[in-house]
Amino acid sequence: MKEFELIHQLTSEWPQDKNVAVGPGDDCAVLDWESHDIQMLFKTDAVVEGIHFDATDDPQRVGWKALARPLSDIAAMAGTPHAAVVTVGLGDTEISRQIQAVYRGIHHAARQFQTSIVGGETTANPGRLLLSLAVVGSVPRGRAVLRRGSRPGDALFVSGELGGSLDGHHLDFHPRLLQAQWLAAHFPPHAMIDISDGLGGDLRHLLAPDNLGAVIREASIPISRAARRRSREGRTSKSPLHAALTDGEDYELLFTIPPDHAVAILDAWKGRFPEIPLTCIGKIEAKPELRLQGKSGPHRLDSHGYEHFSES
Amino acid sequence: MKEFELIHQLTSEWPQDKNVAVGPGDDCAVLDWESHDIQMLFKTDAVVEGIHFDATDDPQRVGWKALARPLSDIAAMAGTPHAAVVTVGLGDTEISRQIQAVYRGIHHAARQFQTSIVGGETTANPGRLLLSLAVVGSVPRGRAVLRRGSRPGDALFVSGELGGSLDGHHLDFHPRLLQAQWLAAHFPPHAMIDISDGLGGDLRHLLAPDNLGAVIREASIPISRAARRRSREGRTSKSPLHAALTDGEDYELLFTIPPDHAVAILDAWKGRFPEIPLTCIGKIEAKPELRLQGKSGPHRLDSHGYEHFSES
Repeated sequence: MKEFELIHQLTSEWPQDKNVAVGPGDDCAVLDWESHDIQMLFKTDAVVEGIHFDATDDPQRVGWKALARPLSDIAAMAGTPHAAVVTVGLGDTEISRQIQAVYRGIHHAARQFQTSIVGGETTANPGRLLLSLAVVGSVPRGRAVLRRGSRPGDALFVSGELGGSLDGHHLDFHPRLLQAQWLAAHFPPHAMIDISDGLGGDLRHLLAPDNLGAVIREASIPISRAARRRSREGRTSKSPLHAALTDGEDYELLFTIPPDHAVAILDAWKGRFPEIPLTCIGKIEAKPELRLQGKSGPHRLDSHGYEHFSES
Repeated sequence: MKEFELIHQLTSEWPQDKNVAVGPGDDCAVLDWESHDIQMLFKTDAVVEGIHFDATDDPQRVGWKALARPLSDIAAMAGTPHAAVVTVGLGDTEISRQIQAVYRGIHHAARQFQTSIVGGETTANPGRLLLSLAVVGSVPRGRAVLRRGSRPGDALFVSGELGGSLDGHHLDFHPRLLQAQWLAAHFPPHAMIDISDGLGGDLRHLLAPDNLGAVIREASIPISRAARRRSREGRTSKSPLHAALTDGEDYELLFTIPPDHAVAILDAWKGRFPEIPLTCIGKIEAKPELRLQGKSGPHRLDSHGYEHFSES
């Protein structure tokens, strides 16, 4: 959408105070803040009825999602969330029980991930429910893991499983806060992002602005059971692989580390987070091209993660 | 609206981390944050097409208002803003030129009040444009001026002029940041709020939870020229006095100070801010009642700032 690109451009051009270590364009902003030891993370995000959830979705899960989304961005910087403020735009149809359920969902996520809800504004938004949440967090000074920073030869890892999020995962995912903090402490990633637009699309952010490329092994991609089920039951026209590459709303960590740490991290992760898969799916290359390596040879992936078969 | 009260109740009941010095219910949240000298202020606010502005309003002024509103809350705590994040919900009809104008307005306000815009999210919000802005600021430790804290006998002051904001003031007001910081340094208020719902309504917040009252001298209320003009031209059914009491969106400071500072503050303010009126409009009383003292005797004001004539 043209407007979205325009806004991205307008925002990125704005002058920043010297205390702004990282401005618009990464998972969160990073601010210097009267402390030698830590920096502040600052993020806003919104969920809108009809866009990010349906009117028929369980309102408690909608509330959970509304807070979990910006927490996932805090995770993608290897940060710790502290406090959130909530703006609620009420549509025409919300009834008290629904609102209480939305707030219960926000509350549950806040308690689970130790985030205080410290304020809120309520307004009318005739036509649809909208929840906008802003979060402040912290990260040890200089330890925020940015989207930039990958190096040629880096191993590319992804947590969890991908695709089919619409079957429910997008409403009750767990932001990978603990996992990212553990990574930063033990195997500091060169670059990291949380997957919201799909592996194929978000991987691009780890390759810019250094004009890098990547090769992904098709057989390594952790495809979720939901993606396979949706395909098998004919509820999507995508193959399970395409779903894993393009569905989005996975909210898993995608990160790069030096290749000589690849074996050690898999062992250590398994010991620490046995219930969450961690998969090495490929590597970073100097050539600015995104390739999928499969049985039928390499395919080029376009900017949305879809395969182009011109090379096969 | 029942839902708004419900949300207020739901929010105020939430457990807070020990680092939350002031949670929901004041102008901003106040957080302890890795510093012995300062505390963090955190606030979110939103403006919605058809509610806080019209589709025909100048989009640049809409952008200004969207940031100026939460900055006015930072002012009401005597704080300093530092950084803001912007969530834009795009309706169906925005064209590029309008979006650029909205962002130019946000940008102008950000530059004017030295606030860095450090991030943003864009989503669709079919039907209407919505802007939700969250701001972090700071205040010297223990110096945030809360809504509570008034004492019987305190003099009650208001900056600027009140009423008739719909004629334009609500789109291009200046948050009283400098003025509030100056007050906190020279004549620390016991309690302070910015007037968004009207003098009559917001004054209540300075009287709770201590069950205080106030008497206002009718002849002292600084009525804006816009309020007089709207009444004279028959564009409102309110008298200028009622407009000043109830119109809202004035974004002026309303605060209480010890009565023996009343003369000195008027002199000092005039020297420092000669272009902005400052008016002593009454005093705080121990009796929990809000009275308007006029030529025709005292009237009681209801919770919306309207007069009740039962006592006249």
